[in-house]
Amino acid sequence: CIWVHRLHTFRYRHQQTTAKRVEEVEFDGPCMKTEVPGPRSKILAQQLEAIQSVVQVNFFCDYEESKGNYLVDVDGNRMLDVYTQIASIPIGGYSILYDPELFLGTFVNRPALGMMPPEQFSEKLVNGLMAVAPKGFSRVQTMACGSCSNENAYKAIFIWYRVRGQQFLSLVFSFFFQVPGCPDLTLLSFMGGFHGRTLGCLATTHTKAIQKLDVPSFDWPIAPFPQLRYPLGQFERENAQEEARCLEEVEDLIVKWNQKGRHVAGVVIEPIQAEGGDNHASFDFYRKLRGITKKHGCAFLVDEVQTGGGSTGKFWAHEHWGLDDPADIVSFSKKMLTGGYYQKNSFQPDKPFRIFNTWLGDHTKNLLLTEVIKVIKTENLLDQAKRSGKVILEGLYNLQDKYPHLLSRARGIGTFCAIDVKDEDTRNNLILKARNKGVVLGGCGTQSIRFRPALVFTEHHAHLFLDIFNDAIAELK
Amino acid sequence: CIWVHRLHTFRYRHQQTTAKRVEEVEFDGPCMKTEVPGPRSKILAQQLEAIQSVVQVNFFCDYEESKGNYLVDVDGNRMLDVYTQIASIPIGGYSILYDPELFLGTFVNRPALGMMPPEQFSEKLVNGLMAVAPKGFSRVQTMACGSCSNENAYKAIFIWYRVRGQQFLSLVFSFFFQVPGCPDLTLLSFMGGFHGRTLGCLATTHTKAIQKLDVPSFDWPIAPFPQLRYPLGQFERENAQEEARCLEEVEDLIVKWNQKGRHVAGVVIEPIQAEGGDNHASFDFYRKLRGITKKHGCAFLVDEVQTGGGSTGKFWAHEHWGLDDPADIVSFSKKMLTGGYYQKNSFQPDKPFRIFNTWLGDHTKNLLLTEVIKVIKTENLLDQAKRSGKVILEGLYNLQDKYPHLLSRARGIGTFCAIDVKDEDTRNNLILKARNKGVVLGGCGTQSIRFRPALVFTEHHAHLFLDIFNDAIAELK
Repeated sequence: CIWVHRLHTFRYRHQQTTAKRVEEVEFDGPCMKTEVPGPRSKILAQQLEAIQSVVQVNFFCDYEESKGNYLVDVDGNRMLDVYTQIASIPIGGYSILYDPELFLGTFVNRPALGMMPPEQFSEKLVNGLMAVAPKGFSRVQTMACGSCSNENAYKAIFIWYRVRGQQFLSLVFSFFFQVPGCPDLTLLSFMGGFHGRTLGCLATTHTKAIQKLDVPSFDWPIAPFPQLRYPLGQFERENAQEEARCLEEVEDLIVKWNQKGRHVAGVVIEPIQAEGGDNHASFDFYRKLRGITKKHGCAFLVDEVQTGGGSTGKFWAHEHWGLDDPADIVSFSKKMLTGGYYQKNSFQPDKPFRIFNTWLGDHTKNLLLTEVIKVIKTENLLDQAKRSGKVILEGLYNLQDKYPHLLSRARGIGTFCAIDVKDEDTRNNLILKARNKGVVLGGCGTQSIRFRPALVFTEHHAHLFLDIFNDAIAELK
Repeated sequence: CIWVHRLHTFRYRHQQTTAKRVEEVEFDGPCMKTEVPGPRSKILAQQLEAIQSVVQVNFFCDYEESKGNYLVDVDGNRMLDVYTQIASIPIGGYSILYDPELFLGTFVNRPALGMMPPEQFSEKLVNGLMAVAPKGFSRVQTMACGSCSNENAYKAIFIWYRVRGQQFLSLVFSFFFQVPGCPDLTLLSFMGGFHGRTLGCLATTHTKAIQKLDVPSFDWPIAPFPQLRYPLGQFERENAQEEARCLEEVEDLIVKWNQKGRHVAGVVIEPIQAEGGDNHASFDFYRKLRGITKKHGCAFLVDEVQTGGGSTGKFWAHEHWGLDDPADIVSFSKKMLTGGYYQKNSFQPDKPFRIFNTWLGDHTKNLLLTEVIKVIKTENLLDQAKRSGKVILEGLYNLQDKYPHLLSRARGIGTFCAIDVKDEDTRNNLILKARNKGVVLGGCGTQSIRFRPALVFTEHHAHLFLDIFNDAIAELK
């Protein structure tokens, strides 16, 4: 089998090139003892059912036993983790790197970071979040989770738009905004975009109907996101036309909504629509979109909650676009361990308590992130993501050539890869088959599988994954 | 001085009655070395200013040195903490009670709790959140923070209202809700209420204009909250009339909004309006309000983010009302360490992923809470809160008798107490004076001071606080 062969070759190279420490905490492969979920997971699910819904629960895990790239469930099944808690574990279960004593005081005495921060707060921000800040950003605001990050980024945009607007357009504004203090401003988002599930975020989230059903929403403009045809090389002209159509629609929407007095204060977009199905657009599309926001005075918010943290081979996916000034605000969470956003200076509200809450994040996550970033840098894990990503994507290309009736649209940057399966049921079935063979995967969109390994996922793990994934596909009828 | 005298008497009783362990981690009183913020805090604020706004920062803390009821700042000032990180530290800096090893695996491998919970998840919920669940609740959903808790509780209410409504009122609904899927439902909230700062929560938050200014909002009904006159005993009839007026307005609003097709799906209220100024209403008011929600088919959401966790002398403030069925949903955060809400079974959405996000809270907080609840129970800290609260409130009554030109409206349940100062500037000045004498306090409303000690705040600390507070007041011109 070609996969086994590759794996062996790889293992040889691997042992010579990778740092020892990564290997020390690693198992040598998946090890399955039961179907997943196993009997212990099922018992635990029954217990939990008495307290909360378990319809979303896949299985229960033993996080003390989970190390490196391997997730161990409560039935002792050891699985290669290509989903990482919905793309939120940066460098795998590196428990041994952390000294628990470091965190304890802050953990128990959780500070209200906006009012009474701990001594090392600045230092940890400088060595943590600011050490990996996208070019052009010198300010950061932490928040507890991705939704809170976007909610507060939206507020920062509205405040910025009004404060700026009041200086230059006070007459226009006093005419248009009939609700005193709460103006009828809007944010433009994209079909297929996902920015969170709280009420403000949800107004910009357009992935699955069930996420929005029955919940009151803001009536804000929604633009089409390019539907690229694959393989990209074969549809260059069509895809360029599709992107031009979408950009034209964006500009039309901004003009139209501004004209009716419901000004578009900002545009929010992901560098890759993740939850929506790993939908990519060209770097050129994003550069032009940035130009449109500048032309019309809209803030440009890049939501890197899922794409940020290094899996694309750069720390921030939008850094691939090659722009000096790609964004006004960049939001993050998941692999960054803390939520929050970077902001241009002009987005700092003019008065205190406009952006505020009790905790404003969780300093223990800042401490952890600082350690994680040290590891990412010393072990060159961004380069690792590029190398592993190359193996994954080439493997996916081979698989879709081998199973053209099942697989299509293999795509990705770094390890941030995805592939489409012929329909939703087959996709879900394939994820379950892979899991029972020891690989944890997640779906996205209607029929895609997203691959979201940690940054310690080496070429070795990539081959191991492809080998098992191939076996799972081969079993599909 | 009367306060010194009381303190001495108390110390004597205290030493005989309180468990040793609380004392072991405690300092014997405030110890001030500099003005607050001191030079080290100022340097750190300058450093932080380069990265984020510091206009809300009071001072920087040394959380490793902070123990029990004392907060130690980076200049070595040791202050009695009567604010507890905006009312969010349950039992003070009890670091020694926790074994860091317990938390490490979960801390580093942060689980996506909705999909891959850890083995002990149910058990920790049963011994943590469910061990202190308000009567009538057998289900709980964790969330990361207070705003997320309310945002998701609102969603649960809207889903419940529609799912129930569609069964009985499908014709009415299809007529009224013109936006398919996103109905024009509303939530009724109260003037002076505070429920968070994300866009959904913010539509129900009505404390300070600066919190809402420039941010688009939902147009939902807002009812008046009773403005009680103090002392309560002197204004019984007027206060009963005021409460009746507010309840009548609530019912009118529900009827009116339902009639115009913007149905009121739920009513959200705090047992004590905290951020809004520690505004109380009688238990009878809440009982009648509960009746109105039942009559009109609205969900009743009690927001215990600030009041929950034991400081009123019961674990939940709404338990004082003496109702068998006081609420449909109870939200919490702050002193509960994790955000979340208890819900009646009927509020569990009918389909998966309707209430969901990546982390759904943070399991390390569940672990910590389980330990905290053990301590609260074994050391009878709710009784402690009643005893200390009595000392605080009596002390506040004495102070307002002594300084009637400065202080008024002393009020509270348990240690959840407040007093009004003659105006906002004097209030702010008094808080600073108390801080420089070694007591950390926080304001609320326009001219109130709220007292929010931890549950380990004994009569001894109450006397100590009153003594210093008296000195600070005496210095006011």
